[in-house]
Amino acid sequence: MTMNKKVIQITSSHNEQMKRWKKLHSRKGRMKYQALLVEGEHLVSEAIRAQVPIRSLIVDEKQEEKVKQLNTSAPIYMLSSSLFHSLMETESPQGIAAEIHMKEWKEEELLAHAPSRSIFLLLDAIQDPGNLGTILRTAEAAGVTGVFIGKGTVDPYNPKVVRAAMGSIFRLPLVQVDLSLCLPRLKERGIHIIGTSPHAGKWHFEYTFPSKVAILLGNEGRGVDPALFSFVDEQVMIPMPGGTESLNVAITSAILLYERIRQQYLRG
Amino acid sequence: MTMNKKVIQITSSHNEQMKRWKKLHSRKGRMKYQALLVEGEHLVSEAIRAQVPIRSLIVDEKQEEKVKQLNTSAPIYMLSSSLFHSLMETESPQGIAAEIHMKEWKEEELLAHAPSRSIFLLLDAIQDPGNLGTILRTAEAAGVTGVFIGKGTVDPYNPKVVRAAMGSIFRLPLVQVDLSLCLPRLKERGIHIIGTSPHAGKWHFEYTFPSKVAILLGNEGRGVDPALFSFVDEQVMIPMPGGTESLNVAITSAILLYERIRQQYLRG
Repeated sequence: MTMNKKVIQITSSHNEQMKRWKKLHSRKGRMKYQALLVEGEHLVSEAIRAQVPIRSLIVDEKQEEKVKQLNTSAPIYMLSSSLFHSLMETESPQGIAAEIHMKEWKEEELLAHAPSRSIFLLLDAIQDPGNLGTILRTAEAAGVTGVFIGKGTVDPYNPKVVRAAMGSIFRLPLVQVDLSLCLPRLKERGIHIIGTSPHAGKWHFEYTFPSKVAILLGNEGRGVDPALFSFVDEQVMIPMPGGTESLNVAITSAILLYERIRQQYLRG
Repeated sequence: MTMNKKVIQITSSHNEQMKRWKKLHSRKGRMKYQALLVEGEHLVSEAIRAQVPIRSLIVDEKQEEKVKQLNTSAPIYMLSSSLFHSLMETESPQGIAAEIHMKEWKEEELLAHAPSRSIFLLLDAIQDPGNLGTILRTAEAAGVTGVFIGKGTVDPYNPKVVRAAMGSIFRLPLVQVDLSLCLPRLKERGIHIIGTSPHAGKWHFEYTFPSKVAILLGNEGRGVDPALFSFVDEQVMIPMPGGTESLNVAITSAILLYERIRQQYLRG
């Protein structure tokens, strides 16, 4: 690495950048600046690897050497340790963080670029950050085309979501929508919407996934809003031979996504 | 409910019961007393429904009416609100908690009662309480025969695990073991051990699950300890068409458990 790096020292918590970064701790601030802060070497490296626009690298001056390993031309802000830690939300931020520009996908753009075989997730009011993060991580692994984040769902740029998602938010197209408006448009485009119900009469593995399909998943407590569920084209049930009544929503997403993968691999 | 209920008032934090309950906040205390505290209406009701031995009901005197709905003859301890809250770990304990006797399963007992079609989970150093809880919840739903909790795994009676497990710890046989000693014994009994590897050469859905099988799952960071992985009879790989390198361990457990269920349902 011989890149010429621009380094800016920040010595006061009243610095304008500091104020701006602190605002990124709230959903409102992230929306306003279309940006998020990611903390720790792993996530910063993932962001660089995914080639998302990095507005600034934020470094603890005691761990200056960390920057040398990073392949980015973003401006570097060097902070005293105490200033650095005052800004971080994680317990061990490992001396490095970055401000990332959030790519905002539009529904039209995502649908226009969707391949002939596509799969989408539709998330209605998923509240737990760990669940959302795990859903996104699984979705990326399973080759999901894009995720529609419905109202009432936790902010996908919430730091807990970002951590559980293991970098997938940098790579997976996310669209924040009102599902009651979005679902009819998806159906018009020939995308089949499936949902789970204990009374479906058909196991999930008895359902043949069509080439364009979207899986509707609901809130941890109440499930999918009935008004949204009425848009479902096909209901499937997931067996629970152990006799329990429900599965975690991230687990449900994985079971359905991987049944589709199995069908695709076998069909070739 | 007309059951005659024994009610004991506790007015001091120096009370012997109070001291004992506080010790149940640590793994050491839970091991010593073979007991755990569960907080909140939902978990207390689940424990009663599962008919696990309840040593005591612990009630906030301001929410005395809660007890009337519960079908148990366990002694009731009535605490002042401040004493009750000083004992609780959750933010909204809803005025009720219970001390539950932990049923300790022995490996021999579990294996002796295992039906001719059995499936086990073997957990090597699962560290995140949310992951372990979700694994246990999924395992119960999927009809798992029993779970072997290997060394280095978070305590299954940790309150965060108990909450994520949604009551399944009351019903699912759990055995705490040293996997390096347990795995050879399982193999001797004809139980096939499977593990995941990105180099397996066979997708998980190409593997035919035998009638007695155990799935070995490893630590979130490093995977399964290589010394334990050497006991694996069959390696399978889980496709990740999205190009990521790994899945969450609870997601992995669900994908494998539900592929086995699919095969069983189709074979009849």
